Amino acid sequence: MMQPAFRKIVIFGVGLIGGSFSLALRKAGAVTEVVGFGRSAATLNEAKQLGILDRIGDDVAREVCDADIVLVATPVAQMADIFKRIAPHLGSNTLVTDGGSTKGDVVAAARANLGSKLPQFIPAHPIAGGEKSGASAALADLYQGKRVVLTPLNENAKDAVSRIRKAWEMCGANVSELTAEQHDTVFAAVSHLPHLLSFALVHDLAKRDNKDQLLSFAASGFRDFTRIAASSPEMWRDICMANRDALMVELQQYAAELFVLHQALESNDAAKLEEIFSLAREVRSAWVQK
Amino acid sequence: MMQPAFRKIVIFGVGLIGGSFSLALRKAGAVTEVVGFGRSAATLNEAKQLGILDRIGDDVAREVCDADIVLVATPVAQMADIFKRIAPHLGSNTLVTDGGSTKGDVVAAARANLGSKLPQFIPAHPIAGGEKSGASAALADLYQGKRVVLTPLNENAKDAVSRIRKAWEMCGANVSELTAEQHDTVFAAVSHLPHLLSFALVHDLAKRDNKDQLLSFAASGFRDFTRIAASSPEMWRDICMANRDALMVELQQYAAELFVLHQALESNDAAKLEEIFSLAREVRSAWVQK
Repeated sequence: MMQPAFRKIVIFGVGLIGGSFSLALRKAGAVTEVVGFGRSAATLNEAKQLGILDRIGDDVAREVCDADIVLVATPVAQMADIFKRIAPHLGSNTLVTDGGSTKGDVVAAARANLGSKLPQFIPAHPIAGGEKSGASAALADLYQGKRVVLTPLNENAKDAVSRIRKAWEMCGANVSELTAEQHDTVFAAVSHLPHLLSFALVHDLAKRDNKDQLLSFAASGFRDFTRIAASSPEMWRDICMANRDALMVELQQYAAELFVLHQALESNDAAKLEEIFSLAREVRSAWVQK
Repeated sequence: MMQPAFRKIVIFGVGLIGGSFSLALRKAGAVTEVVGFGRSAATLNEAKQLGILDRIGDDVAREVCDADIVLVATPVAQMADIFKRIAPHLGSNTLVTDGGSTKGDVVAAARANLGSKLPQFIPAHPIAGGEKSGASAALADLYQGKRVVLTPLNENAKDAVSRIRKAWEMCGANVSELTAEQHDTVFAAVSHLPHLLSFALVHDLAKRDNKDQLLSFAASGFRDFTRIAASSPEMWRDICMANRDALMVELQQYAAELFVLHQALESNDAAKLEEIFSLAREVRSAWVQK
């Protein structure tokens, strides 16, 4: 029988992202043993019952010294501390990756805390998830056909990047590479800004005395536009703060776009509105989700 | 056997809105004869083949003089002309209603063109539709459980409003009443603004040199946020122009909301972001589409 690709994987944070990584690799027959760490004993027990974990870890040093891969899938704000805890104990063949939605801040945390082990860290952002979270939301096919962006460091060996790429590909993902800076610029535009705009619209209405009347007439357009305003406030606070420079640039550019629309309305320039709407419709209709 | 509620209905514009009105009333056994007018012979023939129309009209005067209801379901920009054509010929028991998404401008067009027949016009906005249009998109259950807003005029007799209400209720709709001004203020906030914002985001990205790269990383959040940016540019140009005063107020209020978010980012005020996101999430999660 063929050897699984990975003998031992250690996961910090066994929620949607971490749990699905384990379930996907298990389903692919790619891992022998999965060990989990986390802040909540209840979540860890649930993850074990759901078949995400073989064991709940109790000694970080012992578990990470001989792991093939350590996945850090906690909220980004906790990653610096985890890097610090694992750094002294990482085996020389152990690679580290993460599941954070922003990359510049994660890379900075790794540089500050991984010391001489920095070359073993290959940052990753799996583009999957949604409003659901927690171990119970984890799915073996969450990453199937989804994109994972690696943002390799100059310090990474080619072979190390290939092994992490292979792990995500075994989860069913389409893996591509960007620099951390490119990543954060791209996602400020196509993900972080839309979330901010959606939260802003609902908040704008929520403040008003007649909000109940307004919402009672809202229909399917409003429903879809505001679906992402039901996302986790804590997670999106962290993402926005972590990527604030790029997000502020996007916000200014978008405000300029709104200014043009306002001017077109003010000057009765119907042709300008139609021109803007037509290009938007053309591009949106041609777009197919990867 | 019971008499159908309406003997003859005349429809101007047999697309999604007009066609579905006919199919719904037929399914309810509420109408004996449906006659259609329109600018395209092909559409009228298609509507007849689809069972939307019994006859294609060729003499407006003869058809509207003994109709129970005339539904004007053309683009709003064409309504003034239709009101002018039908006004001299409307029978004294004939009621007129419409399917326009804005009401202030339709009421103004009616006041300018219906003359002494104005009291026979009861404006309506069926909250249904989407990106599809045309006779072939018409459905007997399009209005089932959907809202229809009537914006009665001071000149309308109570009994006339009741008869039009009954017609929309027989289509399966939940009918409510607002003034035309209230209607346009409410829909500027919950429908017209979100459409404008969605078109603006896609246009903002579409102008950029790296738009293909950006769109290749867009995921489900972007998909839902921009679904309405695939709507008809002509229709939304007309809606925005017709309701420009209320829409400009909304746009300014929204820009102020974005300014607060920009300030929170600039001053590293994570608590402010979380407060805004949390209220938005709470209100959005509690909202259930009517």
